[in-house]
Parts: sequence; C-alpha cells; structure tokens
Amino acid sequence: MDLAARVAEAADLVTVALDELLPRADGPESRLTEAMRYAALGPGKRLRTWFALETGRMFDVDEGHVLRAACALECIHAYSLIHDDLPCMDDDDMRRGRPTVHIAYDEMTAVLAGDALQTAAFEILAHHDTHPDGNVRAELVMRLAVASGARGMVGGQMIDMLGVREDLGGVARMQRLKTGVLIACAFELPLVLARAQEAERHALMNFAHDLGLAYQIVDDLLDAEGDAATVGKAVGKDAAAGKTTFVTLLGVDAARERLGLLKMQTKSHLDAFGPRADFLRASVDFVLERRL
Amino acid sequence: MDLAARVAEAADLVTVALDELLPRADGPESRLTEAMRYAALGPGKRLRTWFALETGRMFDVDEGHVLRAACALECIHAYSLIHDDLPCMDDDDMRRGRPTVHIAYDEMTAVLAGDALQTAAFEILAHHDTHPDGNVRAELVMRLAVASGARGMVGGQMIDMLGVREDLGGVARMQRLKTGVLIACAFELPLVLARAQEAERHALMNFAHDLGLAYQIVDDLLDAEGDAATVGKAVGKDAAAGKTTFVTLLGVDAARERLGLLKMQTKSHLDAFGPRADFLRASVDFVLERRL
Repeated sequence: MDLAARVAEAADLVTVALDELLPRADGPESRLTEAMRYAALGPGKRLRTWFALETGRMFDVDEGHVLRAACALECIHAYSLIHDDLPCMDDDDMRRGRPTVHIAYDEMTAVLAGDALQTAAFEILAHHDTHPDGNVRAELVMRLAVASGARGMVGGQMIDMLGVREDLGGVARMQRLKTGVLIACAFELPLVLARAQEAERHALMNFAHDLGLAYQIVDDLLDAEGDAATVGKAVGKDAAAGKTTFVTLLGVDAARERLGLLKMQTKSHLDAFGPRADFLRASVDFVLERRL
Repeated sequence: MDLAARVAEAADLVTVALDELLPRADGPESRLTEAMRYAALGPGKRLRTWFALETGRMFDVDEGHVLRAACALECIHAYSLIHDDLPCMDDDDMRRGRPTVHIAYDEMTAVLAGDALQTAAFEILAHHDTHPDGNVRAELVMRLAVASGARGMVGGQMIDMLGVREDLGGVARMQRLKTGVLIACAFELPLVLARAQEAERHALMNFAHDLGLAYQIVDDLLDAEGDAATVGKAVGKDAAAGKTTFVTLLGVDAARERLGLLKMQTKSHLDAFGPRADFLRASVDFVLERRL
C-alpha cells in the first residue's frame, strides 16, 4: 500500500480532468482563462481530490463522477487562495514556489480569475456528466455552496482577517469554517453521489472534521517550530502577526498532546467501516505526519 | 397598464425575498453578512427581477419559484457591482447615491461579500424550494453559471477592463458578455422553470439579446449627451477614458438611428406570443425611453 503513489496519482488525475474542464478563450479574455489555469493547474497537494477519490472507492461510486466533484472542489480551493493572497487580504507574493496570481498577472485579473473559478465549480457540478440524476447534482451544488459561502469558508476567512479570536472555541470555530467545511466536502460530495446512509455520512463527517482540526494544529505547530525549507513557506508568521492559534493558546507541548489524542479519535470514526476504510485510516498518519 | 407601478412592485417583492434568503450572522462574520445585505438590499431598478416575473407570468410559472430565481440573479448582479467598483477595477466610490461597499466597509470585506453573494446565488437555485424537480434546479444552476462565468459576465468584464475594442463587433461582443447574457438569464431562468418549448425559448432569447444591446446603446448615448442630474451618475466618463463605445464609433446620430431600428426588431421577436407578451412589449419603450 504505497500511499504517496496513490496521492500523486489522484493529483495527476484531477489535473488532467481540470485541464479539460476549465474554459479556454481565443479573444482578449484569454488573459482571464490563462490566470484561472495558472492558479488551478499549478502544483498542489490535491489532498481534497485524494480524499474524494478514496471515499468514492469505499462506496463504489463511478470514478468519473467523483473526479468531476473533486474538480469543483479544486476550483473553489484555487479561487479562495487567489483572493486570500490579494494585497487587501494576506498580501502574499509567493505561493508554492511561484508568484501569486496578482503578481504573475495583476490585481484586477486575480479578482476576476477567482470569481470565474468559483462559477466554474458550480457549472461543473450542475453538468449532466457529473450524475444522471438532477436531484443528485442539485444536492452537490447545495452542499458545496453551503460549505464555501458566508456560513462556511468565506465566513471563516472574514473571521480570520478580523483577527477576533481570543479563546480555543473561537480558534476552533474559525478553523472549521475557513478550512474544515471544505475538507469535509471532499468526503461529503462522494457520499451524495453514493446516496450513502445517514449513519455512514455522519461517521465520515465526524472523521473529516476531526482530521481538519488536526491538520490545523499541525499547521500551527509547523509555523511555531518548523523551518522554512521543510515547510515550503515562511514560518513564524503567526507569532509575528500576533495571531491567536492553537499553539499560542495551548503551548507547543499541550498542542502536541492534543494532536495525539485527536488522531486516535479521528481514526475511531472509521471503526464501523472495517477494512473498506483502510486507506482513509492510513491517510490520517500520512497527511498529518509528513508535514511535521 | 401602469408599468412603473409593476416595476416598483417587482422591486419590492425581490427585496423582501432577498432579505429572507440572505444569511445573517451573530459572530464576527456579521460584518460580512451586513456588507452582503448593504449591497444586495440597497436601492436599484431591479429590472432583471421585473423581466423574470413578467416572463414567469406569461408561462404561468409559480411566482415563488420565479422570485427565487430572480433573487439568485440579483445576488450575481450585486456581487459583480461590488467587484467592479473595487480600486483595482473601476475604482468607484459611489453607486446609486451611496458609498460603494469597499468605501462603506473596506476592500477586504468587499471582496469577500462579493464572493459570498455569488455563492448565495447558486445555493438559492439549488434549494428544493426553487423547484421540486432536481433536474430543473440543476439546469437553472447550469444556465446561471454559464452566463456569469468566464464565457459570460466575468469574461466580458475582463475584456472591458483591458479596453481592447477597436470595432463595432468587438464592442457588441463585450456588451453581450458583460451585461447581455445576465439580462438574458432573467428571461431564461423562468423559461427553464416553465419547461418552455425550444421555439419560445429561442424567440425570447433573441428578444433579450436585442434588448440588452439597445440598453447599452442608450447607456452610451446618456454618457455622451445626458446630464449628471438626470442620469444619476457621472457622465462623459467614456470619452474622458478614451473608451470605444457604440457612440464613439457610430456618432450620436447614427447610434440613435440604430437604436430606433433595434427597438422595432426587439419587439418583433414577441410577435408569436400575441397579447400574452403585452407587458414585455411595452417594457421595451419603458426601459429604453425613461433613461434618455
């Protein structure tokens, strides 16, 4: 069971599929479609895609359908990164070793490319090729919209930008909205495609939310303890910015301890699935440990 | 037949419905939901809503369903105005007599409020209350996404911002993408809800595209000839910015002549509908003449 190869394979699959699905243009608006492609087809871990594909396999969902759902998720993720990097937000010049979109193009193009990537996500989900049953497609759109809008990702980004988190509950809520719900969507959309039972959905959603929380604690630990070369981006930014994180609130040792407990709890949500969930089970250590 | 009263009634209906549909928040993200409401619930002509409601009536579509589709259109329209007004785009401080969102709040909030309004549009369409049949809901999402994304509104905005239009064809294409396709959606979404026949759809889409084009010519004429008090916004901006418009290319007289022909052509698309289309027929003069 070579997890790294499986993750890489999922990344390749979604990149090829996205290349096919994203619009191309001959006219002057080609600047827009090129910027969309620059952002969405660039290097990335594509963890959401991998989670979606593994979940789809657990439930014997058509891989083509899951892949389209994963493409929609990647479009939302890419749009959110473009807008988060803007000068009026995090003002980041580099992402994954390349200039961010507003640096490689310009700010106006970055706003529009983000906007159109969001639209592309919903267009992909609503298209007949994603599932023959319109009720399933509408449900996919609904779930992704709830996860990524004001009550989800964008709401979380607003809270993060305002920096109004004084306690653990506030930090956890911000994490859940800003990144947790979209990670959960990587499990949820395949479950909609599979028309999975409520109990199964419930267990996997709990798994996803604990995994997302653990991922955030790892991120905070990396920022506090990692070195830039290993982490692949600037570290120590949270402390420098006076940000409240799990690590600034708990301290490194308690955060590590909490992470250990959370890992066990995360895996326990998969108990009912037996060996079907072996890849997801292994993914917990894989996703969390490779980054520390 | 008091058209002005009918238009005002449609505006009130959609404002009440939007107030109900847009998210509210208690947490720090209330800044986001307030900015969304500031943009979407503020004053506006709501012409798209009126077009949608009249089209729905022509085809006996449930008014609640049409109203939700109109709310989705208004969300897209509001989001596009917020982002168009940003400093990196048109850099406008005022809209409809009020500070634009990035002035009333800040740039970061404006980007996020636009983002979340786009998401809200698709969430509204995908919701069960918009139509009992998921295939219809998915089709609505699909049409709105195609109209508002890279091959529609956002693509048109990119072309407009780059200012690369030298001829009439280029100006017409930009207009069609930037504003035409979303105006057409105001007719198209009710037609999807009505499961209208292809021939009816075709005729109304031609009507919508000619109306949108005529609307743009009126806009260009107003900018060249109107005075700011009547028009309600700064005039002479196109010429000052060296913009290519229908008026700069054709001259005022030829543009007026073309507008007259286009009005007749617009109405002719409604011939097959007989008296059912009386309100839409009257809307052509109403929409175009009240602004000159």
